[in-house]
Amino acid sequence: MADRPVEVGIILGSASDWPVMEPAAALLTDWGVGVEVLVASAHRSPRRVEEYVREAAARGIKVLIAAAGHAAHLAGVVAAHTTLPVVGVPIPSSDLQGLDSLLAMVQMPPGVPVATMAIGAAGARNAAIFAAQVLALGDDRVRQRLERHKEEQAAGVAKQQEKIPPEYHPAS
Amino acid sequence: MADRPVEVGIILGSASDWPVMEPAAALLTDWGVGVEVLVASAHRSPRRVEEYVREAAARGIKVLIAAAGHAAHLAGVVAAHTTLPVVGVPIPSSDLQGLDSLLAMVQMPPGVPVATMAIGAAGARNAAIFAAQVLALGDDRVRQRLERHKEEQAAGVAKQQEKIPPEYHPAS
Amino acid sequence: MADRPVEVGIILGSASDWPVMEPAAALLTDWGVGVEVLVASAHRSPRRVEEYVREAAARGIKVLIAAAGHAAHLAGVVAAHTTLPVVGVPIPSSDLQGLDSLLAMVQMPPGVPVATMAIGAAGARNAAIFAAQVLALGDDRVRQRLERHKEEQAAGVAKQQEKIPPEYHPAS
Amino acid sequence: MADRPVEVGIILGSASDWPVMEPAAALLTDWGVGVEVLVASAHRSPRRVEEYVREAAARGIKVLIAAAGHAAHLAGVVAAHTTLPVVGVPIPSSDLQGLDSLLAMVQMPPGVPVATMAIGAAGARNAAIFAAQVLALGDDRVRQRLERHKEEQAAGVAKQQEKIPPEYHPAS
Amino acid sequence: MADRPVEVGIILGSASDWPVMEPAAALLTDWGVGVEVLVASAHRSPRRVEEYVREAAARGIKVLIAAAGHAAHLAGVVAAHTTLPVVGVPIPSSDLQGLDSLLAMVQMPPGVPVATMAIGAAGARNAAIFAAQVLALGDDRVRQRLERHKEEQAAGVAKQQEKIPPEYHPAS
Amino acid sequence: MADRPVEVGIILGSASDWPVMEPAAALLTDWGVGVEVLVASAHRSPRRVEEYVREAAARGIKVLIAAAGHAAHLAGVVAAHTTLPVVGVPIPSSDLQGLDSLLAMVQMPPGVPVATMAIGAAGARNAAIFAAQVLALGDDRVRQRLERHKEEQAAGVAKQQEKIPPEYHPAS
Amino acid sequence: MADRPVEVGIILGSASDWPVMEPAAALLTDWGVGVEVLVASAHRSPRRVEEYVREAAARGIKVLIAAAGHAAHLAGVVAAHTTLPVVGVPIPSSDLQGLDSLLAMVQMPPGVPVATMAIGAAGARNAAIFAAQVLALGDDRVRQRLERHKEEQAAGVAKQQEKIPPEYHPAS
Amino acid sequence: MADRPVEVGIILGSASDWPVMEPAAALLTDWGVGVEVLVASAHRSPRRVEEYVREAAARGIKVLIAAAGHAAHLAGVVAAHTTLPVVGVPIPSSDLQGLDSLLAMVQMPPGVPVATMAIGAAGARNAAIFAAQVLALGDDRVRQRLERHKEEQAAGVAKQQEKIPPEYHPAS
Repeated sequence: MADRPVEVGIILGSASDWPVMEPAAALLTDWGVGVEVLVASAHRSPRRVEEYVREAAARGIKVLIAAAGHAAHLAGVVAAHTTLPVVGVPIPSSDLQGLDSLLAMVQMPPGVPVATMAIGAAGARNAAIFAAQVLALGDDRVRQRLERHKEEQAAGVAKQQEKIPPEYHPAS
Repeated sequence: MADRPVEVGIILGSASDWPVMEPAAALLTDWGVGVEVLVASAHRSPRRVEEYVREAAARGIKVLIAAAGHAAHLAGVVAAHTTLPVVGVPIPSSDLQGLDSLLAMVQMPPGVPVATMAIGAAGARNAAIFAAQVLALGDDRVRQRLERHKEEQAAGVAKQQEKIPPEYHPAS
Repeated sequence: MADRPVEVGIILGSASDWPVMEPAAALLTDWGVGVEVLVASAHRSPRRVEEYVREAAARGIKVLIAAAGHAAHLAGVVAAHTTLPVVGVPIPSSDLQGLDSLLAMVQMPPGVPVATMAIGAAGARNAAIFAAQVLALGDDRVRQRLERHKEEQAAGVAKQQEKIPPEYHPAS
Repeated sequence: MADRPVEVGIILGSASDWPVMEPAAALLTDWGVGVEVLVASAHRSPRRVEEYVREAAARGIKVLIAAAGHAAHLAGVVAAHTTLPVVGVPIPSSDLQGLDSLLAMVQMPPGVPVATMAIGAAGARNAAIFAAQVLALGDDRVRQRLERHKEEQAAGVAKQQEKIPPEYHPAS
Repeated sequence: MADRPVEVGIILGSASDWPVMEPAAALLTDWGVGVEVLVASAHRSPRRVEEYVREAAARGIKVLIAAAGHAAHLAGVVAAHTTLPVVGVPIPSSDLQGLDSLLAMVQMPPGVPVATMAIGAAGARNAAIFAAQVLALGDDRVRQRLERHKEEQAAGVAKQQEKIPPEYHPAS
Repeated sequence: MADRPVEVGIILGSASDWPVMEPAAALLTDWGVGVEVLVASAHRSPRRVEEYVREAAARGIKVLIAAAGHAAHLAGVVAAHTTLPVVGVPIPSSDLQGLDSLLAMVQMPPGVPVATMAIGAAGARNAAIFAAQVLALGDDRVRQRLERHKEEQAAGVAKQQEKIPPEYHPAS
Repeated sequence: MADRPVEVGIILGSASDWPVMEPAAALLTDWGVGVEVLVASAHRSPRRVEEYVREAAARGIKVLIAAAGHAAHLAGVVAAHTTLPVVGVPIPSSDLQGLDSLLAMVQMPPGVPVATMAIGAAGARNAAIFAAQVLALGDDRVRQRLERHKEEQAAGVAKQQEKIPPEYHPAS
Repeated sequence: MADRPVEVGIILGSASDWPVMEPAAALLTDWGVGVEVLVASAHRSPRRVEEYVREAAARGIKVLIAAAGHAAHLAGVVAAHTTLPVVGVPIPSSDLQGLDSLLAMVQMPPGVPVATMAIGAAGARNAAIFAAQVLALGDDRVRQRLERHKEEQAAGVAKQQEKIPPEYHPAS
């Protein structure tokens, strides 16, 4: 990945969150956006989080994505140490299926925002797309990729019509 | 406001959301960010929403903020029509105190992200700060304003110590 | 299905909702009600939704059923574009088991109603029956089918008594 | 009201629900739809409910609206005794702010649908509009009124723009 | 069971609730209490419910237990037709895991009580014990059985200590 | 009250619950049922609870009603010390509006039932009626009072019809 | 307070939490426990939190109490920087009445515990008592104070009996 | 375990809670803290609970951990009988996945605190660590073990980085 600058940093509260977040990293890579992934816990390794976040902007990172479960403080702690936009993905790792991590992420008090996505896989994918949307404001290549993605999505929905038995298809 | 370009568009599902969102518009204005506000409902005036959103990027808008209550579809509908980053603020206008608008905003299916903030006033303020964080990636003046805000916030917290009776203050 | 007019349109936010909704289409077909099924997403293919909905009444559609999961905006978006009655079925596709899609559907703000059914399979079946109840107001054949269904249901409950061991049966 | 047939019956679990539901009755009256209102409780006067409902269709009623709070069984009990479409409005009369009445209404088991609206005032208004949408399938006058309502709503939203300070208005 | 009078009637909204409720019937039988089980749905066979309930007291029934899932109206509907004590067991048959059936049962409005037990298996067993507690007020044999049960339970807990490794046992 | 035996004991976790429960005591008194009220906390005065409960049956008490807020353990603790039927009323005294006290009461594990009523005032009244229903199994006077109450309730609902404007009354 | 060592540190996420927490500080002071109060936000002044917490043990602090609202990360962030016991009090400052702050506090992932108390005033008082219980393990004076408190509480409950009308008092 | 004094008592409401709590006992044992485990139910064997708890302090116990599911009263009942610190672990044994046991534990009314941990496995582990944190105030060996644990945790997080594919690793 040496041939493109890393602009998105993904921070995982635990390596066990990787299977949920891997598609986000892959999508950004696939779209030509440089991405790196750090495992660092707001509770078990706060210094590791802080050091990474405080240097992120200087290293060229433009968007930070934080994924965590249970009482998910990671995104808020990340946001406490930077003025970069921080995107949060609640991971459904507890018995409450992510409702706890969602509320612990989205209900940030005034002053330190976290852009919260849906719980789990949907949120992981959307965090990557949202990061691309932010980067696209200053990067035409990414903007064009997003526009293509929007067209592909619409076409993909139309194509899903094939999975419905033909006798139910609307007459065209 | 003619002397600076409008870069943030705030869309309200109803004018009754204005008291909650007005501080967001004021903060952005105060920070030198051009902002405009449109009342447009995803359900009652979908065409008005679509027309505004589809032209937003061409008019120079870089971030869209959508605020709505009840089953808050506005942010998702806005995001359906643009690749600009969309920030959502759930308004607690129903009997369920915003839990409905929060879930209707944050639980977006994969493909079309909405960066969701906290319910109500906290979310309104954070939406403005988050929009500034996105703009700051390409605007040093806003970035500096954000850094000053971060310092002011920390100083403000320290200053709140004065509201605690002196006999309880930690010995320095 | 050329031999009867299509009066119910079912819109799915994703083809993955088809297994939940297929029994609804089958019930209507079985009762002699013409039904068609469109896959169209409020977020990924909003134009496809709008075009279908705007032409529905003119094509003879009398009731629209919309099924979607996560932040389920589909039914509300459909209702925004028509004055036909719109029935919503929340699909439990997210980690929150449909509570998100239920609230995102049922808590519509005043002005644009969505007739919301139960989450998942129960809601799918009831959406079909409800559509038939609406059609029955102007269609005696459907009304008679509904009345037979009501009798069959009562008889079916009585017949379930056989699954209880005889020693527990009330003395008649 | 002798000059138009009653086509919508509103059933209230308690007269204390009347302030929430009165606007629904008024809207239907205003739109030229005949409406009548019965106070009858599923628990305290089940016979009164049953007698009214069983005769409703024969008396020309086409849509029944049931409003109730707490464990709101009224709509389900109404639906048990008729094949007319039944619309439910959960009333937030308990300490749980209508979440109990919502779930008790919308989560109907398969076989007996209740078309559930939002909790409280929004749901009351939407129940009336939805009833009109059903009637409009066989009544052009009501259909035209609905279409005008849709246009008025869109215009009303645009007019709400006036409540936003002019300096925030988008440049036209 | 001809040799003892039936004093407890269990009503199931569906035969699919039988596996959850069978242990309740078995416990009562085992304790020498006559019990009978009826499948009858508040929505699909309201007449069957009403007829059974209205005759129950005259047939010697002293306690009615009603089990149902989804929007569980059965217990409330039973209570509407009798002054016998009615015990409710919410069945977790929907996607909301019984929260809907719990709230639909326990939140009865004033005037018509339902004695609600826990969701599912725990509630089924407790409904049987509670019915026995009511009968025991007038039946010494059942009262003695309950007292023995209380002692057996305490002894059973003490015996469970054996499942803990001995090295963790408190020194006696 | 010396002229009738006390058969119902109401236990309050705090005297602050008295305004909610007073109508329950008054209803029972009014119906000629002897009732007594004890303030005793499961947490702050467990011995007081235990002593009262252990002697209750011997003193002629037949039904115990326990009302408590927050993590409402009182009813469960009462039930642990007796085989009398225990009725629970969740009091909405915390920030969670009684959802905590409801779940802490109704979700009793298998073996020790608590007959749980609705949160707050509705539950208080219903606890009294339910206690009467239990007593009525062995007391014809109470049974007759209950039957009269059922008739009065039905009549009361019919009388509420007067609160609806006459132009909305169904044609008789 | 110079005459006794400070052993409990209370950290508030905002001075607006002081009215809720003041009784906790007062109770500890009243019981002869040295207490200090710091306003410091996990998000707005993370360095202030960290510096205070890292030096707390060396300064003689034995228990830390953290109170915060919304997505309440403060207690978890405090616990990340110390091995002292950390007690958390969720403050109901958002529209969700403290459910968000409760889940954000109590659902800590494995490794870094936060001893969570009830939402709001009850939790504030209990945090102080719990801190005293921890200190009492090594401080007989505090232990005796706690035992007296337990007796006073039991006596206080008994005294509340006076608030019940005498005609309802159990015969002694 | 005769060679070290028992300082932590774990009470389980049922032996079925042992698989969840066993790691807590093992961690304490591993850290050289004497621990014992009692199965005792607040509802089924209240006397067994009370006797154990009332003697605990005299036997040298310093911290009590109580684990229970459903309407989890155990921790509160334990706290009612002692001034020792009581730690609670909600067990997700009901259909509500531990939300009921969490609220029944954490929402203790003022006067009798329970230090509540997360639902299930995370809470079990944290209860053990928290007990060690309390003991460490008077036991340097445990304090050192805790500090080592904190370092090991931070190192463990850093080591988890290996589970991320190298191409995603931040450039050092």
